[in-house]
Amino acid sequence: MLGGFFLVKQMSENKIVELAKEQALVLDCGKSLKSIKTAYTTYGKLNATKDNAILICHALTGDQYVASKHPITKKEGWWSYIVGPEKPIDTNKFFVVCPNVIGGCMGSTGPKEVNSETGKEYGTDFPVITIADMVRAQKLLIDYLGIEKIFCVTGGSMGGMLVLEWLSKFPKMVHSAIPIATATNHSAQNIALNELARQSIMADPNWNSGNYYNSDNKPLKGLSVARMAAHISYLSKDALHSKFGRNLQDKNSLDYSFDADFQIESYLRHQGFTFVDRFDANSYLYITRAMDYFDVSSSNNGSLIESFKNTSSKVLCISFTSDWLYPTSENKKIVKVFNALGINVSFIEIETDGGHDSFLLEEPKLFEAMQGFIKSTYENL
Amino acid sequence: MLGGFFLVKQMSENKIVELAKEQALVLDCGKSLKSIKTAYTTYGKLNATKDNAILICHALTGDQYVASKHPITKKEGWWSYIVGPEKPIDTNKFFVVCPNVIGGCMGSTGPKEVNSETGKEYGTDFPVITIADMVRAQKLLIDYLGIEKIFCVTGGSMGGMLVLEWLSKFPKMVHSAIPIATATNHSAQNIALNELARQSIMADPNWNSGNYYNSDNKPLKGLSVARMAAHISYLSKDALHSKFGRNLQDKNSLDYSFDADFQIESYLRHQGFTFVDRFDANSYLYITRAMDYFDVSSSNNGSLIESFKNTSSKVLCISFTSDWLYPTSENKKIVKVFNALGINVSFIEIETDGGHDSFLLEEPKLFEAMQGFIKSTYENL
Repeated sequence: MLGGFFLVKQMSENKIVELAKEQALVLDCGKSLKSIKTAYTTYGKLNATKDNAILICHALTGDQYVASKHPITKKEGWWSYIVGPEKPIDTNKFFVVCPNVIGGCMGSTGPKEVNSETGKEYGTDFPVITIADMVRAQKLLIDYLGIEKIFCVTGGSMGGMLVLEWLSKFPKMVHSAIPIATATNHSAQNIALNELARQSIMADPNWNSGNYYNSDNKPLKGLSVARMAAHISYLSKDALHSKFGRNLQDKNSLDYSFDADFQIESYLRHQGFTFVDRFDANSYLYITRAMDYFDVSSSNNGSLIESFKNTSSKVLCISFTSDWLYPTSENKKIVKVFNALGINVSFIEIETDGGHDSFLLEEPKLFEAMQGFIKSTYENL
Repeated sequence: MLGGFFLVKQMSENKIVELAKEQALVLDCGKSLKSIKTAYTTYGKLNATKDNAILICHALTGDQYVASKHPITKKEGWWSYIVGPEKPIDTNKFFVVCPNVIGGCMGSTGPKEVNSETGKEYGTDFPVITIADMVRAQKLLIDYLGIEKIFCVTGGSMGGMLVLEWLSKFPKMVHSAIPIATATNHSAQNIALNELARQSIMADPNWNSGNYYNSDNKPLKGLSVARMAAHISYLSKDALHSKFGRNLQDKNSLDYSFDADFQIESYLRHQGFTFVDRFDANSYLYITRAMDYFDVSSSNNGSLIESFKNTSSKVLCISFTSDWLYPTSENKKIVKVFNALGINVSFIEIETDGGHDSFLLEEPKLFEAMQGFIKSTYENL
């Protein structure tokens, strides 16, 4: 019964709100979105003083189902390990908000949604958005929820970029922040991997320049290959070795064919095939583009010091030793700037062979670090 | 005139020889190839004692044009920096042989060649071959050329695997060897990257289960994406950063489009587009499969000691600090086994940010190491 009780408190309905109705959302590209939909989940209750809100920013292929069952995959929320009753992001204490980013495909305005001006799906008519645009849209949601100051903004990977953008653009609205496994901008290697994914999608004839929503043939193969490429980059060489090595898949000897002989091949194919059920190829293009364009200092002529000069939040940066996509060195750049500005920043590098994906895994050191930081910061509010 | 003189000595005609005519080549998969064609180049002259032959084994997308202009790309040979008059592999002194591997697409028997039994291109009817099969075919060429003992066998990446296979299977035929940036078997990450490439090719509808040779529509997009993925893995994060960083391509500001905004994007697209002119998609499938299957110890129940117990060659192993595909640790495994067996082995780790591709670059430390080893080994013959 206890479990059932927790479950009730933890479960969240997906909500969709229309924002920017009175004033269009002006994007970095110069275009505007007249009214945007934001799909989001909440957990816990906003208290009377409205000081217990935690905003969770999801990664590239994440969504608002942070701690509730995913409607398509039926899997537990992607951060159920971290978010829930008595977990680091304690839904008994905090009011947790997790919105799907604009450009996404789980209900927020994005390429697969219908453009009210044309009555047709946006497709590639959707404007190219940035991480800053995503944060502008999140700010509208936070305003709508009546929150003036967010207790903590957190997220890993792309989610961490949104955290940095919040700290830079709306510094007075953020009491504390936990950017995880992220960077102040995308490296050439990061861009290269995203470009590979985009080319894979656009090479699929079913992509059809982004017009496939009313077709029976969708660019599933291109999207699947894109996901495989990403998945390789999320795992460390050591993790792949210890998880799969050269083990064969349900056989004792090589097949001398192009079927999946090795477990790693089956695993990757499975990752690719299942991904296409829950993700939109055009969203993949738009969100990777936003990540590549990301440079938190771009509106300050490349000066990170200028970009964070108004930040006074308490910050915990976390990196993972085996993350080669957003390595410790990239995360340390953030810490260095914050230190130079006298911002109250802590830094933890977690020793693990889990690779970039470590922030999504059941990593006790991540659990402890987040729990300690959130608890002590809230106690000293 | 001096340059012209050198050029004449260095230039080699492409030759094609039919081998295994009397006795079919029995492959690891159990099938046989009744007569095989091997396309190869030679440089320099075999001396009277036939002790000056150097066999060069090319990498995945390499070919026999090691030191002569490529007939399709018109570019200089892929190892012109290392092979030529007064270079480490001195064509004034040595008789250099470089064959295209079987399974390849530059004239040796492979999926794009006509199967004499059917009168049609093999396509995916070509048997799945292994690195050992490639070496068996090379051995037939070496026999045909009348060479009983090769002075030195060398190659990088997949070429290094062939070197190891030579040392293991035909130890008495190899006086010395230089395996570069290689491994005794393929890691899970290596397999994953190759599987990504294969899935990219097979996702292209123009691949058509390998039957595209007589079609106007070839799987160029799939092959191009495969090449992009490989290219990212060949370069280090630092090399990509110092070469491209976040520099824009012929523009001053972001385009807010899916065109190539960043130089790294243009570069990768160019690498993909130009590759398809010179390489066959099916060959890419077969050769990557051979690499994934490679485990030099597989015929000895996984014992590297057993695999090299008859080796008495003098060996120089070379790795590169920034090579994350075949890192120093993998190359050191070779050295460790050879040391345990009392084989005369030297090891050099070259400090460079050039990544796996370093063996193809103008790397002075590689030049010096190879020159020193080859010179002293030949003097002490």
